Amino acid sequence: MRQYAKPLEILINELSKLPGIGGKTAQRLAFHILSLDDKEAEQLADSILRAKREMRYCSVCGNLTDTDPCRICSDPARRQDVICVVESPRDVAAMERIREYNGLYHVLHGVISPMEGIGPEDINLKSLIGRLQASDVKELIVATNPNIEGEATAMYIARLIKPAGIKVSRIAHGIPVGGDLEYADEVTLLKSLEGRRQL
Amino acid sequence: MRQYAKPLEILINELSKLPGIGGKTAQRLAFHILSLDDKEAEQLADSILRAKREMRYCSVCGNLTDTDPCRICSDPARRQDVICVVESPRDVAAMERIREYNGLYHVLHGVISPMEGIGPEDINLKSLIGRLQASDVKELIVATNPNIEGEATAMYIARLIKPAGIKVSRIAHGIPVGGDLEYADEVTLLKSLEGRRQL
Repeated sequence: MRQYAKPLEILINELSKLPGIGGKTAQRLAFHILSLDDKEAEQLADSILRAKREMRYCSVCGNLTDTDPCRICSDPARRQDVICVVESPRDVAAMERIREYNGLYHVLHGVISPMEGIGPEDINLKSLIGRLQASDVKELIVATNPNIEGEATAMYIARLIKPAGIKVSRIAHGIPVGGDLEYADEVTLLKSLEGRRQL
Repeated sequence: MRQYAKPLEILINELSKLPGIGGKTAQRLAFHILSLDDKEAEQLADSILRAKREMRYCSVCGNLTDTDPCRICSDPARRQDVICVVESPRDVAAMERIREYNGLYHVLHGVISPMEGIGPEDINLKSLIGRLQASDVKELIVATNPNIEGEATAMYIARLIKPAGIKVSRIAHGIPVGGDLEYADEVTLLKSLEGRRQL
């Protein structure tokens, strides 16, 4: 006999496709969803459909938004002369959480990765060049992730942009605040040493 | 400025209502869902709605099912003289996973818990009595969870049923006390089934 009735099996299968959701968790979530009242389950399903329907990529910066241009691009209170380049909309959210950065963003939707056959033309770079030509941006902060692909992408962007006289900077790598020197890996420790600042 | 656009915020909020899904995980899932193509997101939402629409409780045993009576109750190959009493449909799924038990089930949808004001009349017990009167069940295996409420419920059922001359057994404490049937591994669950003792 089949383990579960078909509709339940489909639900468990769909849930287990989500990242970080294994078989057991998918089962637990599925049983929870079945225990919700109809309205709650509809709200959950509707939130998925509505988000997919209404969220799109900003035509200027590539961030996820429900208005175009997005709220950040169309906010006159933000500095128009700094652009922070990130890999994904999630990184925009992470930057916004620090409540300190007040410039604009540019979302690459990926990184250059020769290993996976992803070249500069496969990420959202061309529109960045267009933005820089059309505005008076003074600094580009490259906040791609500190791994091989992120570094390679940062280097590529720096070489591409610097001849235009725009300052290109890279976020600092080092020991996380609250972290422990003893447990830091060698590369991170080396980066934190190289990036030392005078007190 | 608001952290997220409204539709994304609603989606994150809905996801974070799910058990074991915190704020960060909800964000990660939401961004993943937005990265799906439309068809995949619709499949996910549809699986929720379809499961809610088509799954109901079996009028005989109380298990979740898309047919009534459920596949287990209407399976002539299963032993009709043994009923395993469990707390929830998840526990039926757990029991079925050991592929050893071949009798019927009865799902209580709860346990007796004076602390929470849940009495015998608040769980699916009355229909169990009806089933026992209408059939020739020889053994009732009480597989409620091995915690205070589960034990109390088992004792209550034993006292209620035994005068009718039906054997009432309890699964063995192979499962760690305080543990959860749903998360027990198959071997432990099998041992607990084999080692059941008469109450």
